[in-house]
Amino acid sequence: MVIERNRKNPLIIPADVKPSREDFSVECVFNAGVTRYNDDIILLLRVAERPIQTDESKVTVPIIKEVNGKFELQLISFDKNDSSCDFSDSRLIKKNDEMYLTSMSHIRIAKSKDGINFDIDETPFIFPQTQYEEFGVEDPRVTFIDGEYYINYSAVSSKGIATNLVKTKDFKNVEQEGIIFPVENRDVCIYPEKINGKYYALHRPVPSMIGNPEMWIASSEDLIHWGRHEFLMGTKKEGWESGRIGGGAVPFKTEKGWIEIYHGADKNNRYCLGALLLDLDDPTKIIARSEKPILEPEAKYEVEGFFGNVVFSCGVLCENECVKIYYGASDEVIALAEISIEEIYKLLNV
Amino acid sequence: MVIERNRKNPLIIPADVKPSREDFSVECVFNAGVTRYNDDIILLLRVAERPIQTDESKVTVPIIKEVNGKFELQLISFDKNDSSCDFSDSRLIKKNDEMYLTSMSHIRIAKSKDGINFDIDETPFIFPQTQYEEFGVEDPRVTFIDGEYYINYSAVSSKGIATNLVKTKDFKNVEQEGIIFPVENRDVCIYPEKINGKYYALHRPVPSMIGNPEMWIASSEDLIHWGRHEFLMGTKKEGWESGRIGGGAVPFKTEKGWIEIYHGADKNNRYCLGALLLDLDDPTKIIARSEKPILEPEAKYEVEGFFGNVVFSCGVLCENECVKIYYGASDEVIALAEISIEEIYKLLNV
Repeated sequence: MVIERNRKNPLIIPADVKPSREDFSVECVFNAGVTRYNDDIILLLRVAERPIQTDESKVTVPIIKEVNGKFELQLISFDKNDSSCDFSDSRLIKKNDEMYLTSMSHIRIAKSKDGINFDIDETPFIFPQTQYEEFGVEDPRVTFIDGEYYINYSAVSSKGIATNLVKTKDFKNVEQEGIIFPVENRDVCIYPEKINGKYYALHRPVPSMIGNPEMWIASSEDLIHWGRHEFLMGTKKEGWESGRIGGGAVPFKTEKGWIEIYHGADKNNRYCLGALLLDLDDPTKIIARSEKPILEPEAKYEVEGFFGNVVFSCGVLCENECVKIYYGASDEVIALAEISIEEIYKLLNV
Repeated sequence: MVIERNRKNPLIIPADVKPSREDFSVECVFNAGVTRYNDDIILLLRVAERPIQTDESKVTVPIIKEVNGKFELQLISFDKNDSSCDFSDSRLIKKNDEMYLTSMSHIRIAKSKDGINFDIDETPFIFPQTQYEEFGVEDPRVTFIDGEYYINYSAVSSKGIATNLVKTKDFKNVEQEGIIFPVENRDVCIYPEKINGKYYALHRPVPSMIGNPEMWIASSEDLIHWGRHEFLMGTKKEGWESGRIGGGAVPFKTEKGWIEIYHGADKNNRYCLGALLLDLDDPTKIIARSEKPILEPEAKYEVEGFFGNVVFSCGVLCENECVKIYYGASDEVIALAEISIEEIYKLLNV
């Protein structure tokens, strides 16, 4: 298999991104949606920030809170000596029944002519702003349909992780379409066109009592209301996708079917990318599934970082028989790998 | 508060129900949907059966399995000495990563003229028959809309617990509408009419990583595709609804608003019923919520049984200002309690 990492990898690192406030620092920039808009390749970056910690005896975290009917950003500090707090996981703080995240993600626009060198906006594009976004907005995917860019992302709050949908024509004005998949559901990938009269989306519910984090598919007439949910694909007993699987990039059309670049993680949370071929006329039917990963953590920036051993994609660009896979590496930086459609077919034995 | 248990309670017990096969026994009959059809009050009973255990060294369980493209009932036996099996919970068996339920539920019709004495069909009405129903179909709710009876129920399988929708005009022929809320989601209550042009349903997702089992509401144009999910109501810190809450009966309309009889359980899984008043024109708005339960386990059949200390309703009949609450008691029998709408208003302080 010939997949080629860009020699400029990682393309975007936290130091490239201006924080949204002077008292914040950008910790991670990863898991970006991708599309073309006018002459540009646009990445919708997930930017994770945290307050600059100025008092060594405290941990200060950001949260979106309702104040007089409006949701606004607040900072909450926890005393490191407070025995009712659990600081053992650096990503979160538990206090009694409540949980807080130490960083908060928003979505930022980056633009490029060549797909390699990006100009990154200085201010957020989508900033958390509802009760469903208390802890942030994560992992955007963007699908262009009939002149509108539909962007779905994980809305994270104390109520759980849901998937919210917004749309824009110009990457400036954003219209809310509401929660399309309630808690717990993320990794939603909306197909870019109607198939036999219906829109389709991959989604990844996480059941609590019985079942695993696996891939489902649903259909819709309007992209807002979803039904006819079907189980699409499960984890495997052993190996790189034995822990959890979920949608990655927005699927793209080829002559042999829809190709989906998805993620699979093993029981040690090592995240790889796989490829899936789905029937052109019925995307609930799987034609082929990669036995081996199409990309696995090997480069230094994929193996080491904020959360090492992770490659995770929210979007690809397929142009001229070549697939540019943008992916988050180690939950910290953004990288690019390229592979031809022919090579993906080979991997899938089709 | 004046709520009156029927003096013939429990109205239906397992011995009243003929098993679906001669080698099965009915263990529990509970959590029934209720509606009027022609001159009858119809209960859609949840009937839980298990194979009669004939070999003391084994535990035999029922499961729906795919055989040559068709789903059929099979029996699987586990050796009680098999150390890879966990038999510690009498409701289930765990073997390696897999789980099996010791009983399987189907849905049975019972008819009555007076709402107290029921004739129970000898054969199942809805029997598990898909990959989503491997372990059974549970807790039906029925909503009458425009000449059709829409029945939703929990479809339980190794993939998780989802909510499936079917419809019928005659309680004989059933049409599948598919999964309307994917795993993990149950306690779905569909409103009986459009409100401002949209159908509404209460639902109860169970998030895995963050959040609690709490009540959400969604809307639809066709009852099949659902969107605009909103968080409706959470658990409380202490008391009878501190563990989990969820929809109970199909909501009914009164002059002061929609009344929903829901369930709340504390952290010891003691299940009570509460009442909720929702805005007539906007059922996402709560007008009042009962501080105290409207019904709590007190009678012997509510306190003792298959799973004691449970009262749980899937349906009520509201006629002549009186609400007949049909409810499962101790997950084993069906009982009836009556309360006037005036008394519910008093409980809600409205």
